[in-house]
Amino acid sequence: MDAIARIERSLAEALEPGTTPPLLSLAMRHAVFPGGARIRPRLCLAAAEACGGDDPALADATAAAIELLHCASLVHDDMPAFDDAAMRRGRLTVHKAYGEPLALLVGDALIVLAFQHVLRCPTAHAERVRTVLRIVSEAVGTPAGIVAGQAWECEPRVDLSAYHRAKTAALFAGASMAGAAAAGGPVEAWRAVGERLGEAYQVADDIADALAAEEEFGKPVGQDAAHGRPSAVRELGLQGAVARLHALAESAATAVPDCPGREQLGALIRQEARRLLPKSLAAAAT
Amino acid sequence: MDAIARIERSLAEALEPGTTPPLLSLAMRHAVFPGGARIRPRLCLAAAEACGGDDPALADATAAAIELLHCASLVHDDMPAFDDAAMRRGRLTVHKAYGEPLALLVGDALIVLAFQHVLRCPTAHAERVRTVLRIVSEAVGTPAGIVAGQAWECEPRVDLSAYHRAKTAALFAGASMAGAAAAGGPVEAWRAVGERLGEAYQVADDIADALAAEEEFGKPVGQDAAHGRPSAVRELGLQGAVARLHALAESAATAVPDCPGREQLGALIRQEARRLLPKSLAAAAT
Repeated sequence: MDAIARIERSLAEALEPGTTPPLLSLAMRHAVFPGGARIRPRLCLAAAEACGGDDPALADATAAAIELLHCASLVHDDMPAFDDAAMRRGRLTVHKAYGEPLALLVGDALIVLAFQHVLRCPTAHAERVRTVLRIVSEAVGTPAGIVAGQAWECEPRVDLSAYHRAKTAALFAGASMAGAAAAGGPVEAWRAVGERLGEAYQVADDIADALAAEEEFGKPVGQDAAHGRPSAVRELGLQGAVARLHALAESAATAVPDCPGREQLGALIRQEARRLLPKSLAAAAT
Repeated sequence: MDAIARIERSLAEALEPGTTPPLLSLAMRHAVFPGGARIRPRLCLAAAEACGGDDPALADATAAAIELLHCASLVHDDMPAFDDAAMRRGRLTVHKAYGEPLALLVGDALIVLAFQHVLRCPTAHAERVRTVLRIVSEAVGTPAGIVAGQAWECEPRVDLSAYHRAKTAALFAGASMAGAAAAGGPVEAWRAVGERLGEAYQVADDIADALAAEEEFGKPVGQDAAHGRPSAVRELGLQGAVARLHALAESAATAVPDCPGREQLGALIRQEARRLLPKSLAAAAT
Protein backbone atom coordinates (compact mmCIF):
# COMPACT_ATOMS: atom_id res chain seq x y z
CA MET A 1 0.00 0.00 0.00
CA ASP A 2 1.47 3.38 -0.96
CA ALA A 3 1.93 6.27 1.43
CA ILE A 4 -1.14 8.22 0.39
CA ALA A 5 -3.37 5.15 0.72
CA ARG A 6 -2.00 4.47 4.21
CA ILE A 7 -2.58 8.07 5.25
CA GLU A 8 -6.13 8.23 3.87
CA ARG A 9 -7.03 4.93 5.52
CA SER A 10 -5.71 6.09 8.87
CA LEU A 11 -7.55 9.42 8.58
CA ALA A 12 -10.77 7.60 7.68
CA GLU A 13 -10.41 5.40 10.76
CA ALA A 14 -9.79 8.44 12.96
CA LEU A 15 -12.90 10.15 11.61
CA GLU A 16 -15.37 7.26 11.96
CA PRO A 17 -18.43 9.16 13.18
CA GLY A 18 -19.64 6.77 15.89
CA THR A 19 -21.86 8.70 18.32
CA THR A 20 -20.34 12.11 17.56
CA PRO A 21 -23.02 14.80 17.08
CA PRO A 22 -23.89 14.46 13.37
CA LEU A 23 -23.16 18.01 12.22
CA LEU A 24 -19.85 18.10 14.09
CA SER A 25 -18.89 14.83 12.48
CA LEU A 26 -19.77 16.09 8.99
CA ALA A 27 -17.92 19.35 9.58
CA MET A 28 -14.82 17.49 10.79
CA ARG A 29 -14.84 15.35 7.65
CA HIS A 30 -15.31 18.48 5.54
CA ALA A 31 -12.11 19.85 7.09
CA VAL A 32 -10.07 16.73 6.32
CA PHE A 33 -11.52 15.27 3.09
CA PRO A 34 -10.64 15.61 0.30
CA GLY A 35 -7.15 16.59 1.32
CA GLY A 36 -4.44 18.63 -0.30
CA ALA A 37 -1.01 17.18 -1.07
CA ARG A 38 -0.77 15.57 2.42
CA ILE A 39 2.86 16.62 2.31
CA ARG A 40 3.40 16.64 6.11
CA PRO A 41 2.09 13.11 6.73
CA ARG A 42 4.01 11.85 3.70
CA LEU A 43 7.18 13.34 5.17
CA CYS A 44 6.30 11.65 8.48
CA LEU A 45 5.80 8.24 6.87
CA ALA A 46 8.92 8.67 4.75
CA ALA A 47 10.99 9.33 7.88
CA ALA A 48 9.49 6.26 9.59
CA GLU A 49 10.22 4.10 6.55
CA ALA A 50 13.74 5.47 6.25
CA CYS A 51 14.31 4.47 9.90
CA GLY A 52 13.23 0.89 9.25
CA GLY A 53 9.45 1.16 9.53
CA ASP A 54 9.14 -1.59 12.16
CA ASP A 55 5.81 -0.30 13.60
CA PRO A 56 3.64 0.66 10.62
CA ALA A 57 0.47 1.01 12.73
CA LEU A 58 2.12 3.64 14.94
CA ALA A 59 3.69 5.34 11.93
CA ASP A 60 0.31 5.56 10.16
CA ALA A 61 -1.42 6.92 13.26
CA THR A 62 1.37 9.45 13.77
CA ALA A 63 1.19 10.62 10.16
CA ALA A 64 -2.59 10.97 10.39
CA ALA A 65 -2.23 12.92 13.64
CA ILE A 66 0.13 15.37 11.95
CA GLU A 67 -2.42 15.90 9.16
CA LEU A 68 -5.33 16.29 11.60
CA LEU A 69 -3.41 19.03 13.40
CA HIS A 70 -2.63 20.73 10.11
CA CYS A 71 -6.32 20.62 9.12
CA ALA A 72 -7.32 21.98 12.54
CA SER A 73 -5.02 24.95 12.10
CA LEU A 74 -6.46 25.66 8.62
CA VAL A 75 -10.02 25.65 9.96
CA HIS A 76 -9.20 28.15 12.70
CA ASP A 77 -6.94 30.29 10.49
CA ASP A 78 -9.73 30.58 7.89
CA MET A 79 -12.19 31.99 10.44
CA PRO A 80 -13.19 35.67 10.43
CA ALA A 81 -10.90 36.40 13.39
CA PHE A 82 -7.95 35.64 11.08
CA ASP A 83 -8.09 35.28 7.30
CA ASP A 84 -11.87 35.40 6.89
CA ALA A 85 -11.51 33.04 3.96
CA ALA A 86 -14.61 31.80 2.14
CA MET A 87 -12.96 29.09 0.03
CA ARG A 88 -10.27 26.46 0.50
CA ARG A 89 -9.26 23.74 -1.97
CA GLY A 90 -12.11 24.85 -4.24
CA ARG A 91 -14.81 24.36 -1.60
CA LEU A 92 -16.40 26.44 1.11
CA THR A 93 -14.34 26.79 4.27
CA VAL A 94 -15.76 25.03 7.32
CA HIS A 95 -17.22 28.17 8.91
CA LYS A 96 -18.86 29.13 5.62
CA ALA A 97 -20.35 25.66 5.21
CA TYR A 98 -21.27 24.92 8.84
CA GLY A 99 -21.14 28.24 10.68
CA GLU A 100 -18.62 29.73 13.08
CA PRO A 101 -19.65 27.80 16.21
CA LEU A 102 -19.07 24.43 14.54
CA ALA A 103 -15.85 25.63 12.88
CA LEU A 104 -14.49 26.61 16.27
CA LEU A 105 -15.40 23.18 17.65
CA VAL A 106 -14.06 21.33 14.60
CA GLY A 107 -10.62 22.81 15.23
CA ASP A 108 -10.75 21.85 18.88
CA ALA A 109 -12.03 18.36 18.15
CA LEU A 110 -9.39 17.72 15.48
CA ILE A 111 -6.59 18.78 17.83
CA VAL A 112 -7.84 16.35 20.45
CA LEU A 113 -8.47 13.65 17.84
CA ALA A 114 -4.84 13.81 16.75
CA PHE A 115 -3.78 12.76 20.25
CA GLN A 116 -6.64 10.26 20.61
CA HIS A 117 -5.76 8.58 17.37
CA VAL A 118 -2.17 7.88 18.42
CA LEU A 119 -3.25 6.91 21.95
CA ARG A 120 -5.75 4.39 20.54
CA CYS A 121 -3.11 2.75 18.36
CA PRO A 122 -2.63 -0.86 19.48
CA THR A 123 1.15 -0.65 19.60
CA ALA A 124 3.27 -2.33 22.26
CA HIS A 125 5.71 0.62 22.22
CA ALA A 126 4.33 2.76 25.07
CA GLU A 127 7.56 4.74 25.37
CA ARG A 128 7.49 5.55 21.63
CA VAL A 129 3.91 6.79 21.97
CA ARG A 130 5.08 9.17 24.68
CA THR A 131 7.98 10.42 22.51
CA VAL A 132 5.79 10.78 19.43
CA LEU A 133 3.15 12.79 21.29
CA ARG A 134 5.73 14.95 23.01
CA ILE A 135 7.18 15.87 19.62
CA VAL A 136 3.74 16.45 18.13
CA SER A 137 2.56 18.62 21.02
CA GLU A 138 5.69 20.79 20.90
CA ALA A 139 5.18 21.20 17.14
CA VAL A 140 1.67 22.53 17.65
CA GLY A 141 1.59 24.36 20.97
CA THR A 142 3.67 26.84 22.88
CA PRO A 143 6.32 28.16 22.97
CA ALA A 144 7.18 27.62 19.29
CA GLY A 145 4.60 25.41 17.57
CA ILE A 146 2.11 26.42 14.89
CA VAL A 147 -0.36 27.96 17.36
CA ALA A 148 2.43 30.16 18.70
CA GLY A 149 3.37 30.96 15.10
CA GLN A 150 -0.15 32.15 14.38
CA ALA A 151 -0.02 34.19 17.58
CA TRP A 152 3.01 36.13 16.33
CA GLU A 153 0.54 37.75 13.90
CA CYS A 154 -1.10 39.34 16.93
CA GLU A 155 2.14 40.85 18.29
CA PRO A 156 3.19 44.45 17.60
CA ARG A 157 6.73 43.31 16.69
CA VAL A 158 7.51 40.14 14.73
CA ASP A 159 10.78 38.31 14.13
CA LEU A 160 10.20 36.98 10.60
CA SER A 161 12.44 33.98 11.10
CA ALA A 162 10.84 32.98 14.43
CA TYR A 163 7.41 33.51 12.88
CA HIS A 164 8.06 31.24 9.90
CA ARG A 165 9.83 28.63 12.01
CA ALA A 166 6.85 28.40 14.35
CA LYS A 167 3.97 28.89 11.94
CA THR A 168 5.05 26.38 9.33
CA ALA A 169 8.46 24.81 9.94
CA ALA A 170 7.52 23.53 13.41
CA LEU A 171 4.93 21.06 12.10
CA PHE A 172 7.24 19.93 9.31
CA ALA A 173 9.99 19.37 11.87
CA GLY A 174 7.50 17.55 14.06
CA ALA A 175 6.42 15.40 11.12
CA SER A 176 9.95 14.22 10.36
CA MET A 177 10.92 13.76 14.01
CA ALA A 178 7.69 12.01 15.03
CA GLY A 179 7.93 9.71 12.03
CA ALA A 180 11.44 8.73 13.04
CA ALA A 181 10.32 8.28 16.67
CA ALA A 182 7.42 6.04 15.62
CA ALA A 183 9.99 3.68 14.11
CA GLY A 184 12.32 3.90 17.10
CA GLY A 185 14.80 6.04 15.18
CA PRO A 186 16.81 9.01 16.39
CA VAL A 187 14.79 12.18 16.87
CA GLU A 188 16.98 15.27 16.91
CA ALA A 189 18.88 14.24 13.78
CA TRP A 190 15.61 14.58 11.83
CA ARG A 191 14.69 18.08 13.02
CA ALA A 192 16.65 19.94 10.33
CA VAL A 193 15.03 17.95 7.52
CA GLY A 194 11.52 19.03 8.38
CA GLU A 195 12.47 22.47 9.58
CA ARG A 196 14.16 23.42 6.32
CA LEU A 197 11.45 21.84 4.20
CA GLY A 198 8.88 23.74 6.24
CA GLU A 199 10.68 27.02 5.72
CA ALA A 200 10.87 26.25 2.01
CA TYR A 201 7.14 25.57 1.97
CA GLN A 202 6.37 28.89 3.67
CA VAL A 203 8.56 30.78 1.22
CA ALA A 204 6.78 29.01 -1.66
CA ASP A 205 3.47 30.07 -0.13
CA ASP A 206 4.60 33.69 0.06
CA ILE A 207 5.69 33.52 -3.60
CA ALA A 208 2.37 32.02 -4.72
CA ASP A 209 0.46 34.64 -2.72
CA ALA A 210 2.42 37.49 -4.27
CA LEU A 211 2.15 36.12 -7.83
CA ALA A 212 -1.59 35.47 -7.57
CA ALA A 213 -2.06 39.09 -6.54
CA GLU A 214 0.22 40.29 -9.33
CA GLU A 215 -1.96 38.53 -11.90
CA GLU A 216 -5.10 39.93 -10.38
CA PHE A 217 -4.08 43.45 -9.37
CA GLY A 218 -0.94 44.04 -11.39
CA LYS A 219 1.31 44.24 -8.35
CA PRO A 220 2.74 41.58 -6.04
CA VAL A 221 0.63 42.43 -2.97
CA GLY A 222 -1.61 39.64 -1.81
CA GLN A 223 -3.29 38.33 1.32
CA ASP A 224 -0.08 38.64 3.31
CA ALA A 225 0.21 42.36 2.65
CA ALA A 226 -3.54 42.85 3.00
CA HIS A 227 -3.37 41.36 6.48
CA GLY A 228 -0.07 43.08 7.32
CA ARG A 229 1.62 39.69 7.61
CA PRO A 230 5.34 39.21 7.18
CA SER A 231 6.31 37.68 3.83
CA ALA A 232 9.57 36.48 2.30
CA VAL A 233 8.69 38.29 -0.93
CA ARG A 234 8.27 41.57 0.88
CA GLU A 235 11.53 40.98 2.73
CA LEU A 236 13.72 39.57 -0.06
CA GLY A 237 11.98 40.48 -3.30
CA LEU A 238 10.61 37.87 -5.69
CA GLN A 239 13.95 36.66 -7.05
CA GLY A 240 15.50 36.56 -3.59
CA ALA A 241 12.58 34.49 -2.34
CA VAL A 242 12.92 31.97 -5.16
CA ALA A 243 16.65 31.61 -4.47
CA ARG A 244 15.91 31.13 -0.78
CA LEU A 245 13.36 28.40 -1.58
CA HIS A 246 15.90 26.42 -3.61
CA ALA A 247 18.61 26.80 -0.99
CA LEU A 248 16.25 25.58 1.74
CA ALA A 249 15.04 22.54 -0.22
CA GLU A 250 18.59 21.48 -1.07
CA SER A 251 19.60 21.99 2.53
CA ALA A 252 16.65 19.82 3.69
CA ALA A 253 17.62 17.01 1.31
CA THR A 254 21.23 16.99 2.46
CA ALA A 255 20.16 17.05 6.12
CA VAL A 256 18.57 13.58 5.91
CA PRO A 257 20.56 11.44 8.36
CA ASP A 258 22.44 8.39 7.15
CA CYS A 259 19.85 5.60 6.82
CA PRO A 260 18.60 3.07 4.24
CA GLY A 261 16.01 5.47 2.76
CA ARG A 262 18.28 8.51 2.51
CA GLU A 263 18.51 8.72 -1.30
CA GLN A 264 14.82 8.13 -1.86
CA LEU A 265 13.81 10.79 0.64
CA GLY A 266 16.26 13.30 -0.79
CA ALA A 267 14.72 12.77 -4.22
CA LEU A 268 11.20 13.22 -2.81
CA ILE A 269 12.18 16.50 -1.18
CA ARG A 270 13.73 17.92 -4.37
CA GLN A 271 10.67 16.83 -6.34
CA GLU A 272 8.34 18.53 -3.85
CA ALA A 273 10.33 21.76 -4.02
CA ARG A 274 9.87 21.89 -7.79
CA ARG A 275 6.14 21.24 -7.40
CA LEU A 276 5.86 24.07 -4.89
CA LEU A 277 6.96 26.77 -7.34
CA PRO A 278 4.47 28.30 -9.78
CA LYS A 279 5.11 26.80 -13.24
CA SER A 280 6.53 29.97 -14.78
CA LEU A 281 9.16 30.28 -12.02
CA ALA A 282 9.97 26.57 -11.90
CA ALA A 283 10.76 26.64 -15.63
CA ALA A 284 12.95 29.73 -15.24
CA ALA A 285 14.81 28.24 -12.29
CA THR A 286 15.75 24.87 -13.78
CA MET B 1 1.18 20.74 50.64
CA ASP B 2 -2.60 20.85 50.25
CA ALA B 3 -4.43 20.02 47.03
CA ILE B 4 -5.02 23.59 45.90
CA ALA B 5 -1.35 24.49 46.41
CA ARG B 6 -0.25 21.46 44.40
CA ILE B 7 -2.66 22.34 41.58
CA GLU B 8 -1.66 26.01 41.45
CA ARG B 9 2.02 25.11 41.47
CA SER B 10 1.57 22.64 38.62
CA LEU B 11 -0.46 25.16 36.61
CA ALA B 12 2.19 27.82 37.17
CA GLU B 13 4.86 25.44 35.89
CA ALA B 14 2.78 24.61 32.83
CA LEU B 15 2.31 28.30 32.05
CA GLU B 16 5.92 29.44 32.37
CA PRO B 17 6.11 31.86 29.46
CA GLY B 18 9.53 30.92 28.06
CA THR B 19 9.73 32.08 24.44
CA THR B 20 5.96 32.03 23.85
CA PRO B 21 4.76 35.18 22.02
CA PRO B 22 4.22 37.65 24.89
CA LEU B 23 0.56 38.52 24.29
CA LEU B 24 -0.39 34.87 23.84
CA SER B 25 1.39 34.04 27.07
CA LEU B 26 -0.41 36.82 28.96
CA ALA B 27 -3.77 35.81 27.49
CA MET B 28 -3.20 32.17 28.44
CA ARG B 29 -2.45 33.20 32.02
CA HIS B 30 -5.55 35.42 32.02
CA ALA B 31 -7.59 32.33 31.14
CA VAL B 32 -6.17 30.24 33.98
CA PHE B 33 -5.36 32.66 36.84
CA PRO B 34 -6.97 33.39 39.19
CA GLY B 35 -9.02 30.24 39.03
CA GLY B 36 -12.46 29.29 40.21
CA ALA B 37 -13.04 26.47 42.67
CA ARG B 38 -10.65 24.14 40.75
CA ILE B 39 -13.18 21.43 41.51
CA ARG B 40 -12.18 19.12 38.63
CA PRO B 41 -8.45 18.99 39.43
CA ARG B 42 -9.28 18.59 43.12
CA LEU B 43 -11.44 15.60 42.25
CA CYS B 44 -8.57 14.26 40.13
CA LEU B 45 -6.02 14.61 42.96
CA ALA B 46 -8.47 13.17 45.47
CA ALA B 47 -8.93 10.07 43.31
CA ALA B 48 -5.16 9.70 42.95
CA GLU B 49 -4.66 10.05 46.71
CA ALA B 50 -7.49 7.63 47.44
CA CYS B 51 -5.71 5.11 45.17
CA GLY B 52 -2.46 5.38 47.10
CA GLY B 53 -0.90 8.46 45.50
CA ASP B 54 2.39 6.73 44.63
CA ASP B 55 3.28 9.10 41.75
CA PRO B 56 2.48 12.62 42.96
CA ALA B 57 4.29 14.31 40.06
CA LEU B 58 2.10 12.53 37.52
CA ALA B 59 -1.02 13.14 39.61
CA ASP B 60 -0.26 16.87 39.82
CA ALA B 61 0.40 17.11 36.08
CA THR B 62 -2.80 15.19 35.34
CA ALA B 63 -4.87 17.42 37.61
CA ALA B 64 -3.40 20.53 36.01
CA ALA B 65 -4.11 19.12 32.54
CA ILE B 66 -7.76 18.62 33.46
CA GLU B 67 -7.98 22.25 34.61
CA LEU B 68 -6.20 23.57 31.50
CA LEU B 69 -8.75 21.77 29.33
CA HIS B 70 -11.59 23.18 31.39
CA CYS B 71 -10.17 26.70 31.04
CA ALA B 72 -9.72 26.20 27.28
CA SER B 73 -13.38 25.26 26.93
CA LEU B 74 -14.46 28.33 28.90
CA VAL B 75 -12.42 30.64 26.65
CA HIS B 76 -13.97 29.23 23.48
CA ASP B 77 -17.48 28.99 24.94
CA ASP B 78 -17.33 32.67 25.98
CA MET B 79 -16.58 33.81 22.42
CA PRO B 80 -19.19 35.57 20.28
CA ALA B 81 -19.85 32.38 18.28
CA PHE B 82 -21.29 30.89 21.48
CA ASP B 83 -22.18 32.78 24.67
CA ASP B 84 -20.72 36.16 23.67
CA ALA B 85 -19.88 36.72 27.35
CA ALA B 86 -18.06 39.89 28.41
CA MET B 87 -17.24 38.87 31.98
CA ARG B 88 -16.09 35.74 33.79
CA ARG B 89 -15.07 35.42 37.43
CA GLY B 90 -15.48 39.18 37.79
CA ARG B 91 -13.01 40.02 35.03
CA LEU B 92 -13.13 40.53 31.28
CA THR B 93 -13.30 37.33 29.26
CA VAL B 94 -10.19 36.56 27.20
CA HIS B 95 -11.64 37.77 23.89
CA LYS B 96 -12.79 41.03 25.52
CA ALA B 97 -9.37 41.59 27.09
CA TYR B 98 -7.15 40.37 24.23
CA GLY B 99 -9.36 40.18 21.15
CA GLU B 100 -10.95 37.28 19.31
CA PRO B 101 -7.85 36.10 17.41
CA LEU B 102 -5.86 35.59 20.59
CA ALA B 103 -8.83 34.04 22.40
CA LEU B 104 -9.14 31.48 19.63
CA LEU B 105 -5.43 30.69 19.92
CA VAL B 106 -5.50 30.62 23.74
CA GLY B 107 -8.06 27.83 23.64
CA ASP B 108 -6.01 25.88 21.11
CA ALA B 109 -2.76 26.43 23.01
CA LEU B 110 -4.28 25.39 26.35
CA ILE B 111 -5.65 22.17 24.85
CA VAL B 112 -2.21 21.28 23.53
CA LEU B 113 -0.54 22.42 26.76
CA ALA B 114 -2.65 19.99 28.76
CA PHE B 115 -1.12 17.11 26.80
CA GLN B 116 2.36 18.67 26.80
CA HIS B 117 2.30 19.12 30.55
CA VAL B 118 1.62 15.45 31.21
CA LEU B 119 4.06 14.36 28.50
CA ARG B 120 6.83 16.49 30.05
CA CYS B 121 6.28 14.95 33.49
CA PRO B 122 9.44 13.10 34.53
CA THR B 123 7.61 9.94 35.57
CA ALA B 124 8.95 6.45 34.97
CA HIS B 125 5.39 5.18 34.32
CA ALA B 126 5.16 5.44 30.51
CA GLU B 127 2.16 3.11 30.37
CA ARG B 128 0.29 5.22 32.94
CA VAL B 129 0.97 8.35 30.89
CA ARG B 130 -0.65 6.63 27.93
CA THR B 131 -3.69 5.62 29.99
CA VAL B 132 -4.03 9.05 31.57
CA LEU B 133 -3.90 10.82 28.22
CA ARG B 134 -6.30 8.38 26.60
CA ILE B 135 -8.82 9.09 29.36
CA VAL B 136 -8.24 12.83 29.14
CA SER B 137 -8.58 12.94 25.36
CA GLU B 138 -11.83 10.94 25.41
CA ALA B 139 -13.18 13.33 28.06
CA VAL B 140 -12.54 16.33 25.84
CA GLY B 141 -12.94 15.23 22.25
CA THR B 142 -15.31 13.16 20.16
CA PRO B 143 -17.56 11.26 20.30
CA ALA B 144 -18.71 12.23 23.80
CA GLY B 145 -16.29 14.67 25.44
CA ILE B 146 -16.88 18.33 26.28
CA VAL B 147 -16.24 19.54 22.72
CA ALA B 148 -18.89 17.11 21.46
CA GLY B 149 -21.14 18.32 24.29
CA GLN B 150 -20.81 21.90 23.12
CA ALA B 151 -21.52 20.72 19.57
CA TRP B 152 -24.90 19.31 20.62
CA GLU B 153 -25.94 22.97 20.97
CA CYS B 154 -25.53 23.24 17.18
CA GLU B 155 -27.79 20.25 16.43
CA PRO B 156 -31.47 20.64 15.54
CA ARG B 157 -32.43 17.86 18.01
CA VAL B 158 -30.79 17.38 21.40
CA ASP B 159 -30.89 14.49 23.87
CA LEU B 160 -30.69 16.40 27.17
CA SER B 161 -29.04 13.54 28.99
CA ALA B 162 -26.39 12.94 26.29
CA TYR B 163 -25.81 16.69 26.13
CA HIS B 164 -25.19 17.06 29.87
CA ARG B 165 -23.13 13.88 30.03
CA ALA B 166 -20.82 15.14 27.30
CA LYS B 167 -20.73 18.85 28.04
CA THR B 168 -19.97 18.61 31.75
CA ALA B 169 -20.00 15.08 33.15
CA ALA B 170 -17.38 13.82 30.68
CA LEU B 171 -14.59 16.00 32.10
CA PHE B 172 -15.59 15.17 35.68
CA ALA B 173 -15.53 11.48 34.80
CA GLY B 174 -12.17 12.00 33.11
CA ALA B 175 -10.86 13.80 36.20
CA SER B 176 -11.72 10.96 38.54
CA MET B 177 -10.56 8.21 36.15
CA ALA B 178 -7.34 9.95 35.13
CA GLY B 179 -6.52 10.67 38.77
CA ALA B 180 -6.94 6.99 39.60
CA ALA B 181 -4.87 6.01 36.53
CA ALA B 182 -2.05 8.38 37.53
CA ALA B 183 -1.73 6.39 40.76
CA GLY B 184 -1.98 3.03 39.00
CA GLY B 185 -5.50 2.47 40.31
CA PRO B 186 -8.48 0.95 38.52
CA VAL B 187 -10.05 3.20 35.91
CA GLU B 188 -13.60 2.13 35.08
CA ALA B 189 -14.62 1.86 38.73
CA TRP B 190 -14.07 5.61 39.05
CA ARG B 191 -16.19 6.68 36.08
CA ALA B 192 -19.49 6.86 37.95
CA VAL B 193 -18.02 9.08 40.67
CA GLY B 194 -17.07 11.85 38.30
CA GLU B 195 -19.98 11.34 35.94
CA ARG B 196 -22.59 11.80 38.64
CA LEU B 197 -20.75 14.71 40.23
CA GLY B 198 -20.50 16.30 36.82
CA GLU B 199 -24.21 15.90 36.20
CA ALA B 200 -24.88 17.39 39.64
CA TYR B 201 -22.64 20.32 38.76
CA GLN B 202 -24.50 20.97 35.50
CA VAL B 203 -27.87 20.86 37.26
CA ALA B 204 -26.52 23.33 39.86
CA ASP B 205 -25.41 25.57 37.00
CA ASP B 206 -28.87 25.48 35.44
CA ILE B 207 -30.40 26.36 38.81
CA ALA B 208 -28.02 29.29 39.36
CA ASP B 209 -28.69 30.53 35.84
CA ALA B 210 -32.44 30.42 36.31
CA LEU B 211 -32.33 32.07 39.77
CA ALA B 212 -30.01 34.85 38.63
CA ALA B 213 -32.47 35.66 35.86
CA GLU B 214 -35.40 35.51 38.29
CA GLU B 215 -33.75 38.12 40.51
CA GLU B 216 -32.98 40.31 37.56
CA PHE B 217 -36.02 39.90 35.33
CA GLY B 218 -38.61 38.45 37.70
CA LYS B 219 -38.83 35.13 35.87
CA PRO B 220 -36.55 32.11 35.81
CA VAL B 221 -35.30 32.55 32.24
CA GLY B 222 -31.59 33.09 31.93
CA GLN B 223 -28.75 32.57 29.51
CA ASP B 224 -29.83 29.00 28.81
CA ALA B 225 -33.25 30.05 27.60
CA ALA B 226 -31.86 33.11 25.83
CA HIS B 227 -29.57 30.83 23.83
CA GLY B 228 -32.21 28.12 23.41
CA ARG B 229 -30.06 25.70 25.41
CA PRO B 230 -31.46 22.72 27.25
CA SER B 231 -31.72 23.21 31.02
CA ALA B 232 -32.70 20.96 33.93
CA VAL B 233 -34.86 23.78 35.35
CA ARG B 234 -36.80 24.04 32.13
CA GLU B 235 -37.18 20.28 32.01
CA LEU B 236 -37.89 19.47 35.68
CA GLY B 237 -38.91 22.78 37.25
CA LEU B 238 -36.91 24.43 40.02
CA GLN B 239 -37.82 22.03 42.82
CA GLY B 240 -37.34 19.00 40.60
CA ALA B 241 -33.89 20.27 39.63
CA VAL B 242 -32.86 20.74 43.28
CA ALA B 243 -34.02 17.22 44.13
CA ARG B 244 -32.09 15.88 41.15
CA LEU B 245 -28.93 17.69 42.28
CA HIS B 246 -29.08 16.11 45.74
CA ALA B 247 -29.75 12.65 44.36
CA LEU B 248 -26.81 12.92 41.97
CA ALA B 249 -24.36 14.12 44.64
CA GLU B 250 -25.36 11.34 47.02
CA SER B 251 -25.06 8.83 44.21
CA ALA B 252 -21.57 10.14 43.38
CA ALA B 253 -20.42 9.81 46.98
CA THR B 254 -21.65 6.23 47.30
CA ALA B 255 -20.04 5.31 43.96
CA VAL B 256 -16.51 5.86 45.30
CA PRO B 257 -14.82 2.45 45.05
CA ASP B 258 -13.53 0.71 48.15
CA CYS B 259 -10.15 2.32 48.94
CA PRO B 260 -8.32 4.00 51.84
CA GLY B 261 -9.63 7.50 50.98
CA ARG B 262 -13.27 6.50 50.44
CA GLU B 263 -14.77 8.27 53.49
CA GLN B 264 -12.81 11.46 52.98
CA LEU B 265 -13.76 11.73 49.33
CA GLY B 266 -17.42 11.04 50.05
CA ALA B 267 -17.39 13.89 52.55
CA LEU B 268 -15.74 16.22 50.03
CA ILE B 269 -18.39 15.43 47.43
CA ARG B 270 -21.29 16.08 49.82
CA GLN B 271 -19.66 19.33 50.90
CA GLU B 272 -19.21 20.46 47.29
CA ALA B 273 -22.86 19.72 46.50
CA ARG B 274 -23.97 22.02 49.32
CA ARG B 275 -21.62 24.74 48.07
CA LEU B 276 -23.04 24.43 44.57
CA LEU B 277 -26.57 25.43 45.59
CA PRO B 278 -27.50 29.10 45.95
CA LYS B 279 -27.64 29.94 49.69
CA SER B 280 -31.42 30.33 49.84
CA LEU B 281 -31.96 26.87 48.37
CA ALA B 282 -29.17 25.20 50.37
CA ALA B 283 -30.77 26.41 53.62
CA ALA B 284 -34.21 25.18 52.54
CA ALA B 285 -32.83 21.78 51.51
CA THR B 286 -30.88 20.90 54.67
